[in-house]
Amino acid sequence: MNFLRSFAKASKSRINNRTPFLLVTSRSFSQLHSQSERPSFGIAFDIDGVVLRGSAPIGGSPLALKRLYHECGTLKIPFVFLTNGGGIRESKRASELSMLLGINVLPSQVIQGHSPFKRLVSRFENELVIAVGKGEPAAVMSDYGFKNVLSIDEYSSYFDNIDPLAQYKKWTSKEVENNTFKEMAPRNDASPQRVHAAFIVSDSVDWSRDIQVLCDVLRTGGLPGREIAHQPPLYFASDDLEYQALFPSERLGMGAFRIALESIFNRIHPNALEYTSFGKPNPSVYKNAETVLMRLVTSLYPNLQVLNLANGGDNIFKTLYMIGDNPSVDIKGARQAGHPWFSILTRTGVFKGKENHAEYPADLVVDTVQDAVNYILTKEHVS
Amino acid sequence: MNFLRSFAKASKSRINNRTPFLLVTSRSFSQLHSQSERPSFGIAFDIDGVVLRGSAPIGGSPLALKRLYHECGTLKIPFVFLTNGGGIRESKRASELSMLLGINVLPSQVIQGHSPFKRLVSRFENELVIAVGKGEPAAVMSDYGFKNVLSIDEYSSYFDNIDPLAQYKKWTSKEVENNTFKEMAPRNDASPQRVHAAFIVSDSVDWSRDIQVLCDVLRTGGLPGREIAHQPPLYFASDDLEYQALFPSERLGMGAFRIALESIFNRIHPNALEYTSFGKPNPSVYKNAETVLMRLVTSLYPNLQVLNLANGGDNIFKTLYMIGDNPSVDIKGARQAGHPWFSILTRTGVFKGKENHAEYPADLVVDTVQDAVNYILTKEHVS
Repeated sequence: MNFLRSFAKASKSRINNRTPFLLVTSRSFSQLHSQSERPSFGIAFDIDGVVLRGSAPIGGSPLALKRLYHECGTLKIPFVFLTNGGGIRESKRASELSMLLGINVLPSQVIQGHSPFKRLVSRFENELVIAVGKGEPAAVMSDYGFKNVLSIDEYSSYFDNIDPLAQYKKWTSKEVENNTFKEMAPRNDASPQRVHAAFIVSDSVDWSRDIQVLCDVLRTGGLPGREIAHQPPLYFASDDLEYQALFPSERLGMGAFRIALESIFNRIHPNALEYTSFGKPNPSVYKNAETVLMRLVTSLYPNLQVLNLANGGDNIFKTLYMIGDNPSVDIKGARQAGHPWFSILTRTGVFKGKENHAEYPADLVVDTVQDAVNYILTKEHVS
Repeated sequence: MNFLRSFAKASKSRINNRTPFLLVTSRSFSQLHSQSERPSFGIAFDIDGVVLRGSAPIGGSPLALKRLYHECGTLKIPFVFLTNGGGIRESKRASELSMLLGINVLPSQVIQGHSPFKRLVSRFENELVIAVGKGEPAAVMSDYGFKNVLSIDEYSSYFDNIDPLAQYKKWTSKEVENNTFKEMAPRNDASPQRVHAAFIVSDSVDWSRDIQVLCDVLRTGGLPGREIAHQPPLYFASDDLEYQALFPSERLGMGAFRIALESIFNRIHPNALEYTSFGKPNPSVYKNAETVLMRLVTSLYPNLQVLNLANGGDNIFKTLYMIGDNPSVDIKGARQAGHPWFSILTRTGVFKGKENHAEYPADLVVDTVQDAVNYILTKEHVS
C-alpha cells in the first residue's frame, strides 16, 4: 500500500473507535516498501495437514504463501511455520520448505517442537545428555549449544545386550550423525558417564529399543544396569497423540510414544515418570511465536516506528492468526493463549468436519490454507 | 532300579500310609528299563534364567539334565521345557536346545508361549490372521494348521504409508518367512481381505510399526484406513512384564508390549482393548504341561500299568516340579495350579534374593538348576 492510501486509511481509522489510531512516519521516501504500514497482524502456519502432506503441498499452499511476499520475493507479511514436528536443524527445515513451496523461508521463520530446548543449554551445557528421534537429533542439540550430547542410537551401542531384540534388526540410521561423540568408559564399566537428561527431539523410530534404554537410564539416575536412583529430567518436544500424514487415517505421534513409555515405566518403577512436554497447545509456544513474529516484523520494517496510542505502545500485533488442522493441538492452543490469537481450522488434515469442532471450536473454519490466507488478507485489507 | 528293589520298596510303602501302594507288573523281563517303576514325578523347566542365559547354559544345566537320561541316552525321567518365549517351531527349538545342552530333546518336550494357539485353528483355519513377533511367526502358525496367515511384516507392506517412520528403518527381517502369502487386493482398495484375528506369537521387534498397524486393524474390524468397527480377537502368547536375558537388569517382555498397545489403544478408541493372554502363570498352561508329561511318560514306559489304589487310578503323577526363576510367572503359576505342582525357585535369573520371594514364595529356593535336579532326584530316590 502506498503512503497516501495508508494516510487516508489512518484518518478513517481515527473516526472508527474500534481501530487504534496509527501514526505512520518514515525516514526515507526512496523505498516504497519501507513506506508501507507495518502489518498489524502476523500468521502462524501448522505444517502437516495444512501446508504439506508428507512432502506434497496441499490446499493451494504455494499460491497462498506467495501472497505473503512482495513481487520481488522479499517477505511482506510476517509469518512463521509453527510445527510440533522436527528432527533436523531449523536452517535445514527452512531450506526444505523453501524448495517444496517455492518461496524463500528464513531459518528464523521455522519454529519446531524442539526449538525451546535451546533455552535449557545453560542448565546442561557440558553434561552428558541423550537425544532421541528420527533425523539427526544430536546434531540439532549440538547446534543449540549442548556440548556433550549423544543420540540414543550411539549411546545404546556402548551397552552390550541392552536390547535383546537387536539381532533381529538390521539398523542403519538414515542420517550419519554429526559426531559429537565423547569417549565413553569401557562397556558396563565401574565409571561410565552418567546421563543427566533425556530429550525426545522428534518421533522415536525404534520404540522397543528406545523405551527399554530410556527406562534403564531414567530408573537408575542415568546409569543403566545399576541400582534404582533419582530420575533425571525428561523432555518431550511435543505431546501429539495423533497427526495427519499420508495414510488416510491419523498416525500415532509423540504423545503416543510418551503414553507407552509412561505406562510401562510406572509398572516397573516405584515412582511415576516425571517429564515436561513442549509444543502446541502449550501457551508458552504461542507466546514465543509472538516474540518471533515481532522480531521478524521489526527486521522487515526497520525504518518504521509505530505509535499505538490505544494500547500504550506494547502490542505490535492486533491479530495473530493460527492456521491449523488439529483442534486439540492448534486450536486449543490458540484459544488458551488468548488475545491476540485468532484460530483458523482447515479441513485438509486431522479435522474433516462440516461445521466446527465441538470441544475446541475455531474462530473460523475453512476448507484449505488458501481459503484461510484469502480470508486474512481481505480482512486486513492487503492486496 | 531292578525289579526286586522296586518290590521291596513297594512293600515298605504299604506300611507307610502317606505313600500310595504301587503294584508293579511287567509283561516282559527282557528289558531291564521297562521293568523299572514308571516315575511318579515329572519336571517342567523354565528356560531363560534357569537353563540358559541367551544361548549359554547356566547353573550346571547340561549336567543336571543329563541325569534325567539313561546311560544310553534315552529319556528316563519325563520332563518338558515350559517357556513363555517362542517364535520358532517347537521342532526347531528342540534341535537348538539339544545342541546347546548336549541332550536329545524331543519336539513334544518343548512347550512354548504360543503352543496353545494350535487349539484355535478350527476357529480361524481359512480366515486371514496376522502373526506378530521375532523369528518366524507365520511359519509357526502355518505349522499349527492356520491356512491363511501373514506375518505383520508382510501384511503391512500392502498398505502405502501405513508406517510414516518406515523411511527411517532399513529393515530386513532376520528370517525369510515361509511364504504362505495369499494375493491381497490392490492397496487401499475397496475389497481387501479382512483380518479376523491377530496373534502375538513372540516378542514384537518393531514396536512403533506393530502398535500402529495393530491399532489400525483392531479399530476397524480388520480393515486399516476404514471406519471404526468391532474389534477382532487378539491373542498374546504370554504376558511377562520383564525377564532375565544377558543384560544385568531385566529386559521388557511381551507384557510390556501389551501394556504399551493397550494404553495407546484405549486413548484413541471408544472401547477398551479386549485380548486373551496365554503363558505362565495361567493355570491352563500347567494343566496342559501335566497332560504333555503324562503322554510322555506313557510313551517312555508303554509296557507298564500302574494301579494307584489311593487315588482311584487318575493321577499318574504324585509330584510335578516347576523349576523357574521368575516368581510372578513361574512360581505364581505353580501355586495357582495347585496339586501336584511343587515349585522350585532358582537364583540365576529374575530372582536373586537370599531368602524366598515375599509375594509368591516357592516351595523350595535353590541357587541353580543343578541344585534343583539334585534335590528332586534325591527326594525321589533316583540315582
